[in-house]
Amino acid sequence: SFDRDCCWRSGIKLLPIECHSSNDFRLTKEALVTAYERARSDGVVVKGILITNPSNPLGTITDRATLAMLATFATEHRVHLICDEIYAGSVFAKPEFVSIAEVIEHDVPGADRDLIHIAYSLSKDFGLPGFRVGIVYSFNDAVVACARKMSSFGLVSSQTQHFLAKMLGDEEFMAMFLRESAARLAARNERFTAGLREVGIGCLRSNAGLFSWMDLRGMLRGGEKTAEAELELWRVIVRKVKLNVSPGTSFHCREPGWFRVCYAN
Amino acid sequence: SFDRDCCWRSGIKLLPIECHSSNDFRLTKEALVTAYERARSDGVVVKGILITNPSNPLGTITDRATLAMLATFATEHRVHLICDEIYAGSVFAKPEFVSIAEVIEHDVPGADRDLIHIAYSLSKDFGLPGFRVGIVYSFNDAVVACARKMSSFGLVSSQTQHFLAKMLGDEEFMAMFLRESAARLAARNERFTAGLREVGIGCLRSNAGLFSWMDLRGMLRGGEKTAEAELELWRVIVRKVKLNVSPGTSFHCREPGWFRVCYAN
Repeated sequence: SFDRDCCWRSGIKLLPIECHSSNDFRLTKEALVTAYERARSDGVVVKGILITNPSNPLGTITDRATLAMLATFATEHRVHLICDEIYAGSVFAKPEFVSIAEVIEHDVPGADRDLIHIAYSLSKDFGLPGFRVGIVYSFNDAVVACARKMSSFGLVSSQTQHFLAKMLGDEEFMAMFLRESAARLAARNERFTAGLREVGIGCLRSNAGLFSWMDLRGMLRGGEKTAEAELELWRVIVRKVKLNVSPGTSFHCREPGWFRVCYAN
Repeated sequence: SFDRDCCWRSGIKLLPIECHSSNDFRLTKEALVTAYERARSDGVVVKGILITNPSNPLGTITDRATLAMLATFATEHRVHLICDEIYAGSVFAKPEFVSIAEVIEHDVPGADRDLIHIAYSLSKDFGLPGFRVGIVYSFNDAVVACARKMSSFGLVSSQTQHFLAKMLGDEEFMAMFLRESAARLAARNERFTAGLREVGIGCLRSNAGLFSWMDLRGMLRGGEKTAEAELELWRVIVRKVKLNVSPGTSFHCREPGWFRVCYAN
């Protein structure tokens, strides 16, 4: 949904940093540099890097070293680093989630804070998408000032603010909620992926989010590894199996046959 | 606040249609034509007419004939007519409020509906500014489609929607609320203006809104009828009397000495 949320009105162009199953789709410096240089040689002015951590659709967290690499790259190349941490409260197994805010504090003291921005929302971790509460946490005063002005026509209802202040201020409830949510997600993830394993379907090992990254490469018709074969399989799943999964192509994944399937919401 | 809400981001320029105390600040066709022609001769491309009905700061309603004149003018000159009807539910005395929607239906059948737009909000009539619920009622499909898309980052919280749907759907409560609100506003208005009359201060006779348009022309220092004298008097009222009134200049009123004073909120 970055395409919809970031590009439609602004005219921004999103270029994927390509990740592969060979290393569990981890973001590497090589992939970042390749994407950056290809963009530049195509005449694109690169303004920033956008990542989701924990990742959507992978359901995995980005490790501290990779985040440090990103912050260093952003600082060196004068590009913004926007981290969407919307699933930060839905990490249900080790390794632990680390926010970019912690990384620049402890691991990259030379990072230019004016280039670092965090997005968050209560939609996912608390199952409150209808409350329409989003948060921009930026170290850049100009960004915060602009967001404050732009929000004047879309402020959060006082009624909702009151409710959420109560909820978020209740430390005992919050600790209990996050603990219970993690335990239930872990159980659901285990049950779901075990069921798939029984019928011969693998998933990327994940530890966060409300979904699995399902490997259906073996089910592409005639073993044909193309985007068309993936979409054909997607139509079968949606129409016959009646499961609303998302094909990898919709996340700009270049390796056909991967699907995101939600098991909680 | 039209300056803030309409101009700051869009770059729109607002030009006042001048009204005068001599006819109780009523909007005339002559004043409209004068403002329109002056704008055109200054090289301004006139895109629309913006009115508040009931009027803020006057607390009076615009009569049916004037609304019909505006709709006809808009249609003839291919300019939009935007009616802010935010105080429509706070009319506490005759004459009755008429919406532009009714006028184009019954009085100006030839009006071009694509040029007519109504703004409303629950902030004033229901005292719910914190709920951040605004309504754009337009006959123009392109405007509605655009507003729908633009609202995607500022939707009303589902919790607030639920509460308001209950409230607005309760016809008995709504009838009682509007009746009671009108009665209390009428009483407050009467008590307030009578008190001012006792000390020799007149107000424009009003029948809507939560404020009075107070005539302090006689109190301008040395009888000097200038914007400076008005602001000087405003500072005295704010600092010494500790009443947060709004000077006429902030509503682009060209006749110094008028102030809007709220008696309900």
